[in-house]
Amino acid sequence: MHFEAFSASELAAYLKGIPAVSARLGEDSELDVMEVGDGNLNYVYFVSSARDPRRSVVVKQAPPFLRLVGESWPLPRERMEREVAALRRFGALCPEHVPSVYHADSEKYLMVMQRLDSHRVLRQALTEGIVYPRLAGHISTFLARTLFHGSDLYLAPNEKKTAVSGDINAELCRITEDLVFTFPFEDNPSNVYSPALPAAAVERLRTHEPLRRAAGEMKWAFMNHAETLVHGDLHTGSIMANEHETYVIDPEFAFYGPMGFDTGAFIANLLLACYAREWHDRAAGREPQAYQRWLLDQTEAVWNGFAQKFAQLWRAHEHETGRAWIGGAADTRAAEAFREDFMRRLLADTLGFAGCKMIRRIVGVAKVAEITSIEDEAVRAQVEVRCLKLAEALLVQRRELASIEAATALAAQVLAEPANT
Amino acid sequence: MHFEAFSASELAAYLKGIPAVSARLGEDSELDVMEVGDGNLNYVYFVSSARDPRRSVVVKQAPPFLRLVGESWPLPRERMEREVAALRRFGALCPEHVPSVYHADSEKYLMVMQRLDSHRVLRQALTEGIVYPRLAGHISTFLARTLFHGSDLYLAPNEKKTAVSGDINAELCRITEDLVFTFPFEDNPSNVYSPALPAAAVERLRTHEPLRRAAGEMKWAFMNHAETLVHGDLHTGSIMANEHETYVIDPEFAFYGPMGFDTGAFIANLLLACYAREWHDRAAGREPQAYQRWLLDQTEAVWNGFAQKFAQLWRAHEHETGRAWIGGAADTRAAEAFREDFMRRLLADTLGFAGCKMIRRIVGVAKVAEITSIEDEAVRAQVEVRCLKLAEALLVQRRELASIEAATALAAQVLAEPANT
Repeated sequence: MHFEAFSASELAAYLKGIPAVSARLGEDSELDVMEVGDGNLNYVYFVSSARDPRRSVVVKQAPPFLRLVGESWPLPRERMEREVAALRRFGALCPEHVPSVYHADSEKYLMVMQRLDSHRVLRQALTEGIVYPRLAGHISTFLARTLFHGSDLYLAPNEKKTAVSGDINAELCRITEDLVFTFPFEDNPSNVYSPALPAAAVERLRTHEPLRRAAGEMKWAFMNHAETLVHGDLHTGSIMANEHETYVIDPEFAFYGPMGFDTGAFIANLLLACYAREWHDRAAGREPQAYQRWLLDQTEAVWNGFAQKFAQLWRAHEHETGRAWIGGAADTRAAEAFREDFMRRLLADTLGFAGCKMIRRIVGVAKVAEITSIEDEAVRAQVEVRCLKLAEALLVQRRELASIEAATALAAQVLAEPANT
Repeated sequence: MHFEAFSASELAAYLKGIPAVSARLGEDSELDVMEVGDGNLNYVYFVSSARDPRRSVVVKQAPPFLRLVGESWPLPRERMEREVAALRRFGALCPEHVPSVYHADSEKYLMVMQRLDSHRVLRQALTEGIVYPRLAGHISTFLARTLFHGSDLYLAPNEKKTAVSGDINAELCRITEDLVFTFPFEDNPSNVYSPALPAAAVERLRTHEPLRRAAGEMKWAFMNHAETLVHGDLHTGSIMANEHETYVIDPEFAFYGPMGFDTGAFIANLLLACYAREWHDRAAGREPQAYQRWLLDQTEAVWNGFAQKFAQLWRAHEHETGRAWIGGAADTRAAEAFREDFMRRLLADTLGFAGCKMIRRIVGVAKVAEITSIEDEAVRAQVEVRCLKLAEALLVQRRELASIEAATALAAQVLAEPANT
């Protein structure tokens, strides 16, 4: 299959020919096409009716290569299909938090989806210190519904296994295996260290045994524990929000993996945002504590909300079928005790994955804007050292931290200590 | 595809037409065909040259239904293909312990394989108290080579994921999920209890919380941890041995699952054989202690041999590639520490799976002959109660038992205590 990017007029003509899209944009109107992607990976367009700009869609085209480099850097040809399939699957489970897909065309590597025009990318909003009161409630709902319904706790064994077999996504998993779980822990040419980051902090990632043992266990879990269809890249750049609504986007990394990888990714990014306040609030002439506390509160709220909703879906399913997943009747004490063990183990996984995700954002090639935008190199290095310190503690202590409150207390403690840069 | 069983003359004519088989049996000889299967599941024949009976093969035909019942009880049509693929895969890794496959025919659900005519089914041999001096060495080699080379520790990530996707085996996994991990822990009509087995012992499987939590965790691991291509049914009836050689047969349950499921299955069956000595030796007028000790020694030797060989394969692979699986150079202390953690966790999995496999053999529908052949109902119940007690202890204490010697000491201790029937 050959890939060709559309010109604006070609894209408009193409969309006019798709009834489901044309009806949404207005059949009798000219279309305005605006390219809005960052240009690295994909082509992204806003397309709207010239007559009524409120009638609008997003078009995303994912070429089978890295756009920035060209065909010499191939990417899996099915990544758009995978993203469409995951959006539809998650959308069926959680329609209020997943954009609708109006049209998908595998041959053109293209999909047309709901425009979220009153929403902002969460990472930017958190960098500006915006409070979204419904965020934790929405994300915990999204996590509970998607992670539960893809698992053996809900699906029949053969349905689950068929899904595992279909949702392998080897090429994109490989990126995570390398960039999250391997390269940060070695002297790898792809790593990028900020100018003032102390050599000792980098050296520790390559030599400190308890940290490396824990990171190795998380890598094993990522590669082997096919628990559910995870989003696979659930950082704050994959979420769009406003005061009333929250949407999860960009699931092209979706695969059958460990549940804690999604919960951990989201929590890692709340913690990175929290630690980066030292710069952003002070640069704006504010004290950081209030918003930092709000971010730690969100960390607690999203885990506790998730754990409560997940357990409730599970309990309700067992009562409906009359059977406990571990065998026997649904309402035995043993079924409830197993559920508690399960959620406790899932919290440990969550904290371990959060630690790995934080580390890769500090020393790996893919950074986060709330930290790279810190202009003062010394302050940035202090923030980074604290992030690495917290990440290590989360990884090493993940099985001892008995609640999310224990983890956020640790985060507050590391924040209060001097960052030895 | 329609299935039809061969008559003896049809089978002989068919085999004459297969050059690889015909050459082995002698092209100019009449063939003797003898059916030897137990008749439940498959058709199994010994076919030999009438002129030279040492020229001989085994033919196995696996109809897509339960032979005992007929087409009304369908079985997966690909089970013979799966068994052939697993035999070839394991055979490539471990040719001295896996019978050669000379010919496979998917349309006829048939394969022709190496005849093991001087070997005995290990379960029978152990019931008779035979000592095979090379058994633990051979099985530990088989386990180390097969479990290592199917895993992410050896395979490239995309190779491993392709293998996972292809080796799902949902129907046969379902049998294990039900019969090993679910039905024994509930009042299920498929369970079969021996006449004198005390009600309290059965009741405990349905109500004792620590045991049920542990069994639930093993079920989760079985269904979710796609670590390597496991044999999937590695009990002592799947092994043929003599004083010099050991072969592993019947891998139709092979799938990508947890490594500890194979190591645990083998150890569980050694422990069942050990506990059953109370009857078999005394019935033969011998004291059981010597052979019981030999069986416990084998349990230790197979685990320790496996752990040492597995770690050595891993270490050699890392030195060859120059890279540690956890990132960095192969010879860091952290790489070795991770390896130790890994083997320790694998021992815990092994003991947990061993516990589940022992329980299913006592209360599930599929029994083991060394226990069902105990004629005295009271003695049988004592043996069964001890098996359940040890199984529970292995499950609940699996993470605290720091070595296989700690597990065998526990086995010896339960054996020495009165069985409260």
